Amino acid sequence: MRAIGAYQQQFLDYLNTQKRPEEPQQLYAPIAYILSLGGKRLRPVLALLSADAFNQKATAALPAALAVELFHNFTLMHDDIMDEAPLRRGKPTVHTKWDNNTALLSGDALLIAAYQALEHYEAPLHSQLTRLLSQTAIEVCEGQQYDMDFEKLQGVTETQYLQMIDLKTAVLLGCSLKMGALVAQAALDAADALYDFGRTLGIAFQIQDDYLDAFGDPKTFGKQVGGDIIENKKTMLYHQTLQLGTTDQKERLLALFATQPAEPGEKIQEVCALFTASGAKKACADKVAFYTHQALGHLEGLSLRPQGREALEQFAKALMARSF
Amino acid sequence: MRAIGAYQQQFLDYLNTQKRPEEPQQLYAPIAYILSLGGKRLRPVLALLSADAFNQKATAALPAALAVELFHNFTLMHDDIMDEAPLRRGKPTVHTKWDNNTALLSGDALLIAAYQALEHYEAPLHSQLTRLLSQTAIEVCEGQQYDMDFEKLQGVTETQYLQMIDLKTAVLLGCSLKMGALVAQAALDAADALYDFGRTLGIAFQIQDDYLDAFGDPKTFGKQVGGDIIENKKTMLYHQTLQLGTTDQKERLLALFATQPAEPGEKIQEVCALFTASGAKKACADKVAFYTHQALGHLEGLSLRPQGREALEQFAKALMARSF
Repeated sequence: MRAIGAYQQQFLDYLNTQKRPEEPQQLYAPIAYILSLGGKRLRPVLALLSADAFNQKATAALPAALAVELFHNFTLMHDDIMDEAPLRRGKPTVHTKWDNNTALLSGDALLIAAYQALEHYEAPLHSQLTRLLSQTAIEVCEGQQYDMDFEKLQGVTETQYLQMIDLKTAVLLGCSLKMGALVAQAALDAADALYDFGRTLGIAFQIQDDYLDAFGDPKTFGKQVGGDIIENKKTMLYHQTLQLGTTDQKERLLALFATQPAEPGEKIQEVCALFTASGAKKACADKVAFYTHQALGHLEGLSLRPQGREALEQFAKALMARSF
Repeated sequence: MRAIGAYQQQFLDYLNTQKRPEEPQQLYAPIAYILSLGGKRLRPVLALLSADAFNQKATAALPAALAVELFHNFTLMHDDIMDEAPLRRGKPTVHTKWDNNTALLSGDALLIAAYQALEHYEAPLHSQLTRLLSQTAIEVCEGQQYDMDFEKLQGVTETQYLQMIDLKTAVLLGCSLKMGALVAQAALDAADALYDFGRTLGIAFQIQDDYLDAFGDPKTFGKQVGGDIIENKKTMLYHQTLQLGTTDQKERLLALFATQPAEPGEKIQEVCALFTASGAKKACADKVAFYTHQALGHLEGLSLRPQGREALEQFAKALMARSF
């Protein structure tokens, strides 16, 4: 999609103009490294799209876009330590390339840098954006904690799962959009509508991520297909199977999720078959459509620039199609 | 000292009124735990003293005092992971009582909570305080990085060491005082003078901490006397010995600092003797006096409430005497 690509580029150009201190090298080199690993820059693009939809030049939202991207990369750096993840976007994670202490301290510095990016704005806007960042940040920490708790917990419900992905993933999309709206001096209720749009879209996005982990095209998904199944992650497909499946299907899924075979091929195949046969695959696809539709509903009745509204809608659809 | 005790109590009363969410328990319980471990609450007291000196009720500075204390405890939680410290104030550290991931994520939440404590204030004060917190926070991260770098590095100079303790320890004392001044609506140059007072006092404080590690009274020091020597830490006593000692003394110190005996008693004794014989002990005591004097100089010419000035001066002297 042309417009989104242009916003991505605009953000990258801005990111590349950012100067950080060189010393202490061990603190700042990992920040430059993780920011160079790429990614779709979804959150910055959302901030720019939102400002534009409210008739503000997207450039005005670049520092806010930087703040959410720095914050997002802080969470990646620390989550990768906690998850002992070896790779991030196909490259060694910071704690693998350096060590845990380096990833810990550089992550701290990234979180602080996210706050500092907002210093571009004067009070009271600076104050407003900082409060929103803090509220979002603490919720993301809570989401990460629930995610870790749920790994060890039996009987996590779909509602609890939805609450977790809301905190861990969705609120930051809402925050990105609301920041763009605040920078554009949108009315508070309009800014909140953009927040709700992003947050609901975030739920759809995460459920679709769960779906694609099992049924995605290895060429376009960007992650290892079946990764969640290998790690016995209780995704929406898992929850739906436990809700919709027959007794046999549920028991078989639980039995398979108690194993961690060295050669996971057969397990992945059987679990995917259970997801399909139980109706969980279809239920998840329906949920993605439902939340995307609900998200778009939050844009209704808002007074937005027509091209801006269209760009937001296209973004939502492109995100679900993973077409950029 | 009566006045400081009263400020400590005022802060503790305020701290005890703070409500945090209970869930997720694993995220918030470690925060309550580390805050309950005690400590002298030096940084909050500095914020309160400063506000009072500028004719503002100390209560007005309580949220700022909370912010610096939360920030300080964030650094303790993360530093203890990095240093693999088993104990903090005689109790198990968070990563020992729980685990590294818990200390990592709860520490992140503490840093965010420090920012949130400042939300008590309206813009533009909120904005001003947030900027100061971020600037200080990134400097403290840099200081921690240099501290870790210097452990592995030979030939660190006294100047580099001073720069490290300035960043790691001193700037936060300056920040605490400046926050109190800003809350009291002090003129910016007066607030900066308080910052310089605190920062210089912080240097004196850290050098004295180095001194007391070797020559302190085990009954009042609060930490294990000789701890730095056991860990081969390159403190000011070490730097001074390498500057002032004879060739023999320097070589002996370097040889001793290349060892890590299971029974460190003899090593501690010999190192302390070297510190004394080389003149390093006296040089450090002189430096403490020098920086304390220099710190107090920053208060001259300021228009402060007489009792407030006296309390700040008494604080500086009591801090150096470790008499509260």
